[in-house]
Amino acid sequence: MTDFQTILDEIHHEIRPLLAQGAVADYIPRLASVPHEKFGMAVVTLDGQLYQTGAATEAFSVQSISKIYTLTLALQAIGDRLWQRVGREPSGNAFNSLVQLELENGLPRNPFINAGALVVADVVLAASAQPRTQLLTEIRRRADNHGLRDDPEVAISEKAHGFRNAALANFIRSFGNLDHPVEEVLDFYFYQCSLAMSCVDLARGFLFLANGGRCPWTGDTVLSADQAKRVNALMLTCGTYDAAGDFAYHVGMPAKSGVGGGIVGVIPNRLAVAVWSPALNAKGNSLAGSAALELFTTKTGMSIF
Amino acid sequence: MTDFQTILDEIHHEIRPLLAQGAVADYIPRLASVPHEKFGMAVVTLDGQLYQTGAATEAFSVQSISKIYTLTLALQAIGDRLWQRVGREPSGNAFNSLVQLELENGLPRNPFINAGALVVADVVLAASAQPRTQLLTEIRRRADNHGLRDDPEVAISEKAHGFRNAALANFIRSFGNLDHPVEEVLDFYFYQCSLAMSCVDLARGFLFLANGGRCPWTGDTVLSADQAKRVNALMLTCGTYDAAGDFAYHVGMPAKSGVGGGIVGVIPNRLAVAVWSPALNAKGNSLAGSAALELFTTKTGMSIF
Amino acid sequence: MTDFQTILDEIHHEIRPLLAQGAVADYIPRLASVPHEKFGMAVVTLDGQLYQTGAATEAFSVQSISKIYTLTLALQAIGDRLWQRVGREPSGNAFNSLVQLELENGLPRNPFINAGALVVADVVLAASAQPRTQLLTEIRRRADNHGLRDDPEVAISEKAHGFRNAALANFIRSFGNLDHPVEEVLDFYFYQCSLAMSCVDLARGFLFLANGGRCPWTGDTVLSADQAKRVNALMLTCGTYDAAGDFAYHVGMPAKSGVGGGIVGVIPNRLAVAVWSPALNAKGNSLAGSAALELFTTKTGMSIF
Amino acid sequence: MTDFQTILDEIHHEIRPLLAQGAVADYIPRLASVPHEKFGMAVVTLDGQLYQTGAATEAFSVQSISKIYTLTLALQAIGDRLWQRVGREPSGNAFNSLVQLELENGLPRNPFINAGALVVADVVLAASAQPRTQLLTEIRRRADNHGLRDDPEVAISEKAHGFRNAALANFIRSFGNLDHPVEEVLDFYFYQCSLAMSCVDLARGFLFLANGGRCPWTGDTVLSADQAKRVNALMLTCGTYDAAGDFAYHVGMPAKSGVGGGIVGVIPNRLAVAVWSPALNAKGNSLAGSAALELFTTKTGMSIF
Repeated sequence: MTDFQTILDEIHHEIRPLLAQGAVADYIPRLASVPHEKFGMAVVTLDGQLYQTGAATEAFSVQSISKIYTLTLALQAIGDRLWQRVGREPSGNAFNSLVQLELENGLPRNPFINAGALVVADVVLAASAQPRTQLLTEIRRRADNHGLRDDPEVAISEKAHGFRNAALANFIRSFGNLDHPVEEVLDFYFYQCSLAMSCVDLARGFLFLANGGRCPWTGDTVLSADQAKRVNALMLTCGTYDAAGDFAYHVGMPAKSGVGGGIVGVIPNRLAVAVWSPALNAKGNSLAGSAALELFTTKTGMSIF
Repeated sequence: MTDFQTILDEIHHEIRPLLAQGAVADYIPRLASVPHEKFGMAVVTLDGQLYQTGAATEAFSVQSISKIYTLTLALQAIGDRLWQRVGREPSGNAFNSLVQLELENGLPRNPFINAGALVVADVVLAASAQPRTQLLTEIRRRADNHGLRDDPEVAISEKAHGFRNAALANFIRSFGNLDHPVEEVLDFYFYQCSLAMSCVDLARGFLFLANGGRCPWTGDTVLSADQAKRVNALMLTCGTYDAAGDFAYHVGMPAKSGVGGGIVGVIPNRLAVAVWSPALNAKGNSLAGSAALELFTTKTGMSIF
Repeated sequence: MTDFQTILDEIHHEIRPLLAQGAVADYIPRLASVPHEKFGMAVVTLDGQLYQTGAATEAFSVQSISKIYTLTLALQAIGDRLWQRVGREPSGNAFNSLVQLELENGLPRNPFINAGALVVADVVLAASAQPRTQLLTEIRRRADNHGLRDDPEVAISEKAHGFRNAALANFIRSFGNLDHPVEEVLDFYFYQCSLAMSCVDLARGFLFLANGGRCPWTGDTVLSADQAKRVNALMLTCGTYDAAGDFAYHVGMPAKSGVGGGIVGVIPNRLAVAVWSPALNAKGNSLAGSAALELFTTKTGMSIF
Repeated sequence: MTDFQTILDEIHHEIRPLLAQGAVADYIPRLASVPHEKFGMAVVTLDGQLYQTGAATEAFSVQSISKIYTLTLALQAIGDRLWQRVGREPSGNAFNSLVQLELENGLPRNPFINAGALVVADVVLAASAQPRTQLLTEIRRRADNHGLRDDPEVAISEKAHGFRNAALANFIRSFGNLDHPVEEVLDFYFYQCSLAMSCVDLARGFLFLANGGRCPWTGDTVLSADQAKRVNALMLTCGTYDAAGDFAYHVGMPAKSGVGGGIVGVIPNRLAVAVWSPALNAKGNSLAGSAALELFTTKTGMSIF
């Protein structure tokens, strides 16, 4: 039997020299002020065991990790019709590139680049009378933590610096691929980015994807088994920005990262694992977090490959 | 001596079969409702003679032609410092492309693509307490017509359909190349596009560019002789969207076109010539208007080459 | 226990209507002449069981599938130093695009796009005195079939129509990322594309990738366990041209396709599966073959996700 | 009357500080070995007067300037049908970019980027039994110098370093826009680049373009008046690589530059002017040469604008 606690402790020890490297996202003050050396990690297995190390219960800004939940809501609402409005291919470009969007006539390459997430947000807005409440409720249930909340200061800052996202949203709208006013889509998008969760929350909150789409504690069928597999496939090919190939190569599990320094991965039928360290590598993924997950698959032998 | 009146009459006759071709811009109702078969043309020579044919005194939406006037105001305000914020090269891309802007980090290629015109608008906003009044006053003086005005319905429609321009403005702002709020820049930009002028107004209104920068009737030095030459050079290389090479090849004079179907050209030291026909060719320039100007340089032998 | 024979027979029956769809590659006569309705499929499990249906023992042109073997030789020769000359990210572009290569200064995005395969070929040429013999020997051993051979007519035709590949090779050389003469690299590349194998050969020939890098019959350590995992990760993110995301989504296993209509996939620790049907979908992957593999993971429940 | 000799002498004096700036092309030894501080300039007026300063009779490698002559031969051979195979628009990209060629399906943007010149070379090869002899004869006649010749060492070096051009040629051929073998097209192209001419040769050799297409000394109609105008228009919009806009802005005359440091310009109905200084600016045009031509149009007031 794998001794996850020992492995997490080893990883925590081994990545320590990396905590001085990389750069914390500094485009908004709330992110810039997070101490560089923070590190936390948590594993939750399908049978409900929790293992953790470091600042694993400290909430941080999940940023793009929330795209998994809006994608989930969109798939619940309209199923495969979603793919008429957003693709499923890696982008081969920076996460916020407009080039590809222009060449492909406003159809974002996948739901995890910002353009795709804006279209997904538009779908959620159409499907829900109270999208923010619905999203928050969904995340609380998945993470089994009813105290989870957003950080309004983050959303306000994101909006104040969100010219690139405003450009993307207006651009997509110019192709007719947004139904709601640009302002409304952006506000919801900035809201989802501002949600604050800990590694423990995130590991719990992704476990349904390791469990055929069913939430272990509530018993909810969040997604069908088929949908859960496919979300995992999307995470593997597109979940870590323009480093998905490298991440698959080194880590070997479906994962979603955020610019707040969080990364959550899934080993199907086994576990979910979340890591947090705010300093990012050149591709925008947590530097120490990526290393920690590579150590995790190496030490446990649990790569999907 | 060239008999301009005879030449204009011949041109009007010869282009008649073309008036059924091309497509009127239909992205806003005001433009879409202009009758397809409209045609007007006017020549004003340096000595003040006016020649005209067809609907040469009927006002139409000048759209991008107004970019000459905002460029003029920007050059008056900050001179060559303008070129730190916008380039002087043909774009090799559609007039509203975001691709090039991304590759070149938010520095638009020239002041006549939409991205460049937005930066020019931002410069005018910084330089003027009442930019709209200043622009209108400038145009009225240049055209010697104090009844000239904007068409508010056009500006409102432009704004309602202006997602691509909003994308451009937000994108440029994300690179730090706009100082004013995006909304304010866009409002001024849509205002300038909504100005209504006739062929006679436009031929008069461009004569200063054929006259070393000096306005023949007011005696105003609108631009220095050097600046006037350089605006002419810009028109030749960038004035007719991504067809500037073809236009130089066939017509052979500096010119600026608008999606309302107007084109105004300049033969330095000789004359200005304006033509209007609302149906556009595939590159967004007036189809019959382009042909009329080609006939004009052929019949008069007045190409700059 | 999964009854693979029944499943293969069901798949063969169910995909029959698809055999009339898609288009056989017709850029060279040898490929164009393959009958549209051909279909074969083979599974080899780690314990050595073989299951097959249709034309599973008929050899066809493997084309890009051979890239797995040249990659294997390159990794054997220089290990991770290979990644200084070729990337590991999905391209987000057509397999033979030059655009990305220009933007990224001659460093191909991954070893499976043509540009990357040319660099890999260059590495093999440097490492081997007799590269063709070495490659053929490697493939014969992996497939346990010493009668395997190339089809010289295919190589000659490829060369005669290989202007795009010649452009790529010259372009890469202009960036200094090829050491051998362009002609020599191209000849070896066309040679590898001309190898002919059957579904049974390919399923056997990929089994080492499902087996931690060790060849089940020879006992050879073809790649280290780590390297084998990583090749699988590369196949998943980049193995099926610009449809890798979609393929992962629908099929859910690492796989490599070729324009001859073959696709080979791997379920780590379980099996390798090969399918062949010459008519391609719009992305250049076998149309019926893709469907067959999707049915295979659905019916066996063996997705890696 | 303009005192051209005084003006040339002044220019020579004023540009002296610039001769230390820029960088001599060093991709082939023959170009790299040219002394940095060389400068020559020559003017020939329509009435046959010759003015010169500096090393105006020293031959240098004309490189891309030869594209004017192959274009001339191609227009003589097939007239406007040429434009079915090459465009007339500025490229908005580096002179040897493959990106645009891919986006526009193998139709080069204009005859002066390398891709376009290769297509023009292909047209000349089809039209002439002895293309090299024909080209050399043409240039000798236009320059009134029967001692003009090519520099075989340059052609050989160009070929040895011509991977980018080989990539372009193969790429164009892959789109079906070259009829002759790639090797043959490249050899002719490298030959034309290797021609050696002096400023006096070039000023004489371009005079037909200032003279409605007629060669002043031979009386030959080299091009029709209309064609000559159009070649001038092409030079203005596309003749100085991706700096044509800037060049038009600062200099204001149609001109063609080469990487050997030569630039030749034309003032229609007046004169041709050639300048040579081997050190190039960042856009690949002669640094001191560009400045000299700007001084020339300023001092003579002879801009076409």
